Amino acid sequence: MTYCVAIKVDAGLVFCSDSRTNAGVDQVSTYGKMYHFGIDAQRQLVLTSAGNLATTQAVVSRLRKDIKDGAEVSLATVENLNDAADYIGEVSLAAQEKFANSNSNVSFEASFLFGGQIGTEAPGINLIYPQGNHITTSDLTPYLQIGESKYGKPILDRILKPETGLDTAALCALVSMDSTMRSNLTVGPPIELMTCATNSFTMLHSEFNADNEYLRELTRSWDRLIVEAFLQLPAVSSPIPSV
Amino acid sequence: MTYCVAIKVDAGLVFCSDSRTNAGVDQVSTYGKMYHFGIDAQRQLVLTSAGNLATTQAVVSRLRKDIKDGAEVSLATVENLNDAADYIGEVSLAAQEKFANSNSNVSFEASFLFGGQIGTEAPGINLIYPQGNHITTSDLTPYLQIGESKYGKPILDRILKPETGLDTAALCALVSMDSTMRSNLTVGPPIELMTCATNSFTMLHSEFNADNEYLRELTRSWDRLIVEAFLQLPAVSSPIPSV
Repeated sequence: MTYCVAIKVDAGLVFCSDSRTNAGVDQVSTYGKMYHFGIDAQRQLVLTSAGNLATTQAVVSRLRKDIKDGAEVSLATVENLNDAADYIGEVSLAAQEKFANSNSNVSFEASFLFGGQIGTEAPGINLIYPQGNHITTSDLTPYLQIGESKYGKPILDRILKPETGLDTAALCALVSMDSTMRSNLTVGPPIELMTCATNSFTMLHSEFNADNEYLRELTRSWDRLIVEAFLQLPAVSSPIPSV
Repeated sequence: MTYCVAIKVDAGLVFCSDSRTNAGVDQVSTYGKMYHFGIDAQRQLVLTSAGNLATTQAVVSRLRKDIKDGAEVSLATVENLNDAADYIGEVSLAAQEKFANSNSNVSFEASFLFGGQIGTEAPGINLIYPQGNHITTSDLTPYLQIGESKYGKPILDRILKPETGLDTAALCALVSMDSTMRSNLTVGPPIELMTCATNSFTMLHSEFNADNEYLRELTRSWDRLIVEAFLQLPAVSSPIPSV
């Protein structure tokens, strides 16, 4: 499976993705799911993917080809993030439909988190559904998730606000990833993290392998801190005998 | 939806269930999902349910009727918890099959957490699947869940061990329920909590309404403690520019 989360705070954007793919539990591979499109100094875009690996690879190939070929519509030409998300949605649908005739039980669906900043437009993120449509964030929900999203959602809800700092948002994404990896074996390292401060047009990238000392320390610390927090909770009030 | 968790530690058993049922988001009702079968001083059993409400009500009615009628096989006659789980599984399958002919798209499936203590046998818990088969706990996995299980799973994994005290296990069940309610609207109060110390054959029952002061204080405290714990985590190590 996959877990990807993207966060939009006032200070900038955060993207975080795992690198495990699987077709059943006995066919497990490592594939990065984060793609950076650094078009120029005023156009910095990131895509993370979940779902059918052939579809996502076909989509990324097509996006890169359209840029290289100077196509009329590409990530290099779209005016804003909304148009870019429309375009990626169309490319994704076309990639899925190409194989849909084979009439098998395999799902060719793929979902994407996409975002960045184009020119003077504010930075933003979108979740692009397999159907090609997409949603963005709001102040009350400043994040988007694809893949195995439930285990890592509570910490995002508790921490993230528009005014949260970029470093804190990045840390929150890693903790969300840590909770997910702990509970779902098919989400696993290396973990990729990309941050982009508003108006900086500079993507900062980190990769954490399974034996990364920081990631291990984060996992250990969070486990210890959660247990310590739990031990400070008020004891359950007295129950009454049930007859 | 529903969330129920049952925990087996050396000190005893804990059952926790919510009370919200829904058929779509505009047909929401409150139904207790926890049933206590206090047969006699050496036979104390608890059942919690998830899934089709008509199926679970049919199952509970049949279990009560078999006890009342003095049926050859009932919760009053089964020799041990494993036989009891077999029996409940059969009753559940029969209840589902009775309506399966109507050939609609409705799922009649139901799952159950069941447990307690019978005579000199050790206490135990079982998860009974819609297919009628069942599993129990192990020392490494001292809990079972049905319904919306993902949001509340991480805290169970972090806290529960066979040697965990009964009060701590009960508190852990409530925190697990709190995380679930926060993230899924279709899981809601009143929350029922049942604990049974090993060899006590006494079920202690608590019910927490939405305005219960302890439950509100637990929610507030946990939110505050998680945020405080998060703020103590080590900062993310320096990323490198992505080109």
